[in-house]
Amino acid sequence: MRRLARLVAVVDDALERSLPPASEPPVTLHRAMRYATLGSGKRFRGCLALAAAESTGGDCSVALPAAVAVELVHAYSLVHDDLPAMDDAAVRRGQPSLHVAFGEATALLAGDALLTLAFEVLATAGPPEVAARCVAELARAAGSRGMVGGQQYDTASAAQARPSWEEISRLKTGCLFVAAARCGGLLAGADAHELGLLSACAGALGTAYQLLDDLRDRGEDAIAGRQDPLGALGEEGARQKAASLLAAARRDAGGLGPRAGLLLELVDRVADGGRSPA
Amino acid sequence: MRRLARLVAVVDDALERSLPPASEPPVTLHRAMRYATLGSGKRFRGCLALAAAESTGGDCSVALPAAVAVELVHAYSLVHDDLPAMDDAAVRRGQPSLHVAFGEATALLAGDALLTLAFEVLATAGPPEVAARCVAELARAAGSRGMVGGQQYDTASAAQARPSWEEISRLKTGCLFVAAARCGGLLAGADAHELGLLSACAGALGTAYQLLDDLRDRGEDAIAGRQDPLGALGEEGARQKAASLLAAARRDAGGLGPRAGLLLELVDRVADGGRSPA
Repeated sequence: MRRLARLVAVVDDALERSLPPASEPPVTLHRAMRYATLGSGKRFRGCLALAAAESTGGDCSVALPAAVAVELVHAYSLVHDDLPAMDDAAVRRGQPSLHVAFGEATALLAGDALLTLAFEVLATAGPPEVAARCVAELARAAGSRGMVGGQQYDTASAAQARPSWEEISRLKTGCLFVAAARCGGLLAGADAHELGLLSACAGALGTAYQLLDDLRDRGEDAIAGRQDPLGALGEEGARQKAASLLAAARRDAGGLGPRAGLLLELVDRVADGGRSPA
Repeated sequence: MRRLARLVAVVDDALERSLPPASEPPVTLHRAMRYATLGSGKRFRGCLALAAAESTGGDCSVALPAAVAVELVHAYSLVHDDLPAMDDAAVRRGQPSLHVAFGEATALLAGDALLTLAFEVLATAGPPEVAARCVAELARAAGSRGMVGGQQYDTASAAQARPSWEEISRLKTGCLFVAAARCGGLLAGADAHELGLLSACAGALGTAYQLLDDLRDRGEDAIAGRQDPLGALGEEGARQKAASLLAAARRDAGGLGPRAGLLLELVDRVADGGRSPA
């Protein structure tokens, strides 16, 4: 896990350099963007982009813009999720959440600006044909047919038809994991076969991640409840499902050959539960 | 103005086709995205992208993805601006605003999804090197150093140092106008000289648009108040400033030669005040 720890620092550093300085006007907005993004988070999605690049033959660092972009998208999604109209969460990663610290209007705008910055960073990364494709893939994964669609199901009234927990996990978490891995691979010059393996690996990893997160956060009572996406499986069934997803992710990563070591470390990290606070 | 009216219909049609169908799950989210975008709005920014393409030698239609993208960004900005944490506006274009019609959580997410969709549309437009550049320019214009930065000044407490009204207008309105014109020009193959003229024309047009909008909405009492960006000019001064900006926009458009007719029509439209509700 030593290499992963070093990579987290590399992603942190790249994020720091991608964000506007705290002293640049509008100062409140830029401070809020930095508060929401820097100083915590285990950068799981960013490291996944780097590991995908390494596993498909490139130097990790070619994928840094993808790592930064997916972390910015993740940070924005947490900021908007925490707002009173959504989860109304006062605390995030042990600190006051952004709207508690900076007010609701600034939190809303900082989230908007983080999402926008993600596309600016990605659009100027690597050869233009790769950059354009990465933007398209990340936008698709983050939009109404991906992450935001998944969040909509979480907020919709119980009356609305909900898809299976697996589909909701795919939308909420899996799509961004897949985009992180694919954009990393694209920047490293991965071919279609490798991109297919990366998609499969990251998709399984994302669902397992969400499943284990749900298990840890909600406890058995909630799992037994009807509204919970895990209700259909029960705790034991959910653990078995996560184990089988992680085995599939390992198999897909293994298919990428000897440079998949870092990717396999990430799978182990999810299995160990030593992962980023959601 | 006949051609402009036809182009509005062309932009409307392209927007309709770019948005997910209302029947596609999550249905509430996709209905909300369509409600916020379709059925009203004079598509000033979208038509500016088309006019820019025509004035630099291309067929208007090459710039449709840019027109759609800037209209999606504009629509998202109105949805988030109307939220209770911002302007708390119950009505938009004569209809209940999105959060009144669909609830705050859905309005927040629909805004996020519209912004994200804008980049997806633009990333798949034209040659990849043009698409990547358009994404970068639009993201820069819409982010914390552009539109969102301008909105932050509008919401910040009076204690915070505010730039001049001209700078706030440039951020809030001018940046997106400039991006619309430049992306339209880029998709039509405009050269650096033409892009310079488009930037100057659209920048002046945007500031004039905002100035006339402020004048119309706020009335003389507010203009005389210190907090109003027009306070420094007074009503007569503001009208003179708008006229001089429009003259500059006409001059820049004229510099593009005989194909700038549509662009000049847009300048006239701003001068006549027959423009889109903000």
